Amino acid sequence: VSAVLPAGGSGERLGGGTPKQFCAVQGRPLISYTVRALERISWISDIVVVVSPENITTMKSIIEKYGHKRVTTVKGGVTRHRSIFNGLKVFAENEFSKHLLQKPEVVIIHDAVRPFVEEDILSKVVMAAKKHGAAGAIRPLVSTVIASAADGCLDHSLERAKYRASEMPQAFLFDIIYEAYQRCTDYDLDYGTECLHLALKYCKTNARLVEGTADLWKVTYKRDLYAAESIIKDNLSQQVCVITNVKEAAAQVGFLLCESLKSQIKVEALCLRNSDSHLQKVFSGECYNFICVNDKKDAIQETQQVVDVLEKSNVALLYPVVLTLVLLDISENISSGIGMEDLSMIKTFAREVKNKNILVYGLLIQSK
Amino acid sequence: VSAVLPAGGSGERLGGGTPKQFCAVQGRPLISYTVRALERISWISDIVVVVSPENITTMKSIIEKYGHKRVTTVKGGVTRHRSIFNGLKVFAENEFSKHLLQKPEVVIIHDAVRPFVEEDILSKVVMAAKKHGAAGAIRPLVSTVIASAADGCLDHSLERAKYRASEMPQAFLFDIIYEAYQRCTDYDLDYGTECLHLALKYCKTNARLVEGTADLWKVTYKRDLYAAESIIKDNLSQQVCVITNVKEAAAQVGFLLCESLKSQIKVEALCLRNSDSHLQKVFSGECYNFICVNDKKDAIQETQQVVDVLEKSNVALLYPVVLTLVLLDISENISSGIGMEDLSMIKTFAREVKNKNILVYGLLIQSK
Repeated sequence: VSAVLPAGGSGERLGGGTPKQFCAVQGRPLISYTVRALERISWISDIVVVVSPENITTMKSIIEKYGHKRVTTVKGGVTRHRSIFNGLKVFAENEFSKHLLQKPEVVIIHDAVRPFVEEDILSKVVMAAKKHGAAGAIRPLVSTVIASAADGCLDHSLERAKYRASEMPQAFLFDIIYEAYQRCTDYDLDYGTECLHLALKYCKTNARLVEGTADLWKVTYKRDLYAAESIIKDNLSQQVCVITNVKEAAAQVGFLLCESLKSQIKVEALCLRNSDSHLQKVFSGECYNFICVNDKKDAIQETQQVVDVLEKSNVALLYPVVLTLVLLDISENISSGIGMEDLSMIKTFAREVKNKNILVYGLLIQSK
Repeated sequence: VSAVLPAGGSGERLGGGTPKQFCAVQGRPLISYTVRALERISWISDIVVVVSPENITTMKSIIEKYGHKRVTTVKGGVTRHRSIFNGLKVFAENEFSKHLLQKPEVVIIHDAVRPFVEEDILSKVVMAAKKHGAAGAIRPLVSTVIASAADGCLDHSLERAKYRASEMPQAFLFDIIYEAYQRCTDYDLDYGTECLHLALKYCKTNARLVEGTADLWKVTYKRDLYAAESIIKDNLSQQVCVITNVKEAAAQVGFLLCESLKSQIKVEALCLRNSDSHLQKVFSGECYNFICVNDKKDAIQETQQVVDVLEKSNVALLYPVVLTLVLLDISENISSGIGMEDLSMIKTFAREVKNKNILVYGLLIQSK
């Protein structure tokens, strides 16, 4: 199975200059989220992103910056169908690409501006395509659909229950959709938008319709970018990891913190004496929030260790990671307390790791 | 012109317990925003909100809390059409309501979950309804619409350009839509959703279709609540008002602040020597952010004056107001500098006015 992502749209409905697939959401272009959603699925071999000629460089730098693998950038056509056709050619025509990609049995077609696609629906449309030749995700209509007469008045309204919105992802046996694109007319290529329609019209393949979830929606307007941003932030704050060293006070504070957080959020507790490999296991999960409870002596050193593992795991490439450094200053001896020097060291440290998309916050707790 | 707002939906698509029209957006129920959007338009006489029986009390307390005027709460039916019909009856049937509302020439029907409706589109649909008997806002389709066959496969797809999404607001000559509801069948009342369809079917009135803007969209899913929240926040931060007293230093800082803010945001500058009426004029506008530049002596006193005017204008009832108190401590005499007492007075003050939905922040600038 491979995938084609048409991303050549101009984003005119957004009312802005930047096409929506390249708009930043939490600092990262929307298309990178969509690519990531496909890339993390091991059974998808190649991802072909089709962009308009002026955005080829942008797309290549996005792939580079966010470490995307298995992604090929292809030049789009002037319409959606022409772009998808170009994407398919990479698997079939030698002259189109320097390295011909291996022709897949099934090809997924998905929009660059639907970043929240889950493995479940991808798997369902692929299975259905294997069986029926073509398949696509559908959703109930949100509004009634009407036909207007030439005079700008209502002609008739459709009975909402009988119709569905055709969404993405869709999947096809490669040979069927490729043949449909080869056979279809210039009118189809210029004015059509629906791949399922081409498969039906030119290959007599009635696509299987698969009910999708609400998160398949397409980022179309500015409000959708707002919504995408909020959903991503929400996902980032689902889990927190509390890290303590083995010193008694820190471990105890860490334990109490975990207990009180548990009612609100998924909490993972970790002791730094555990090996790096344990740390790595946690970091490769979906955790983007870390609280390090330290007594001052080894604050920076231990935090550096966490940062190192985070860097190795590449997690901070894709999402901002928040690392809260809790400093316990409980010594009775005033001379060993936390001084301005310690604070400014932490400040310098925070400034350095900010470049790595890791945000360090400090919290000093003094208790004499 | 009057308006009926069906708000009886159960919000099952949101996946939560609270129907979406009662979900809080920036602390205030969504429906209150929609009511406000209609209420601010002087030519709309009455607003009838139709809610399910279990939400009557909630709705009445919302009207009370946010000071809505010209709003009548009516008990809904089990379906959308039955609820709208109940709303219309308040204008026509004596036995239905204790005080029969005056029958309007034109009635607007709008969804409780479309909070961003502008006067422009309301005015357009009302004018069109006067002329054609019925009118409704439409939008281009975002997705292709398809018909599915009984076996769950694609039957055919509609040509996207020929169809439109029917949105709200809609407007009708009252007599036409009321007659349509009286004539229509139980099947219509139970399974239909489209008012334009009833006007066409039972009164032979072809509604005029009016192209609406993107902000007419309906809050349907959780992501829509996120989007609504972001849009409202965005609107709140469009304008800032800088208030200074007449003392030289404060006035100068205020002036420089205005100049540097101007490139980023709409700025209004105000000197407190101006009368209250000037203050009031600004506050009755769309400004929710105030920066008061003071030298310490009269900080609380002047800020209290601003708070008083804000309270009178009711603006903080509907939206949180942010008031940043900038204290200039530039005296050379250390004894007249700002002490802990002043700071704790401001803290107490901030705590008090927070109840009034006014958020006071303090910024102390020391320069000796």
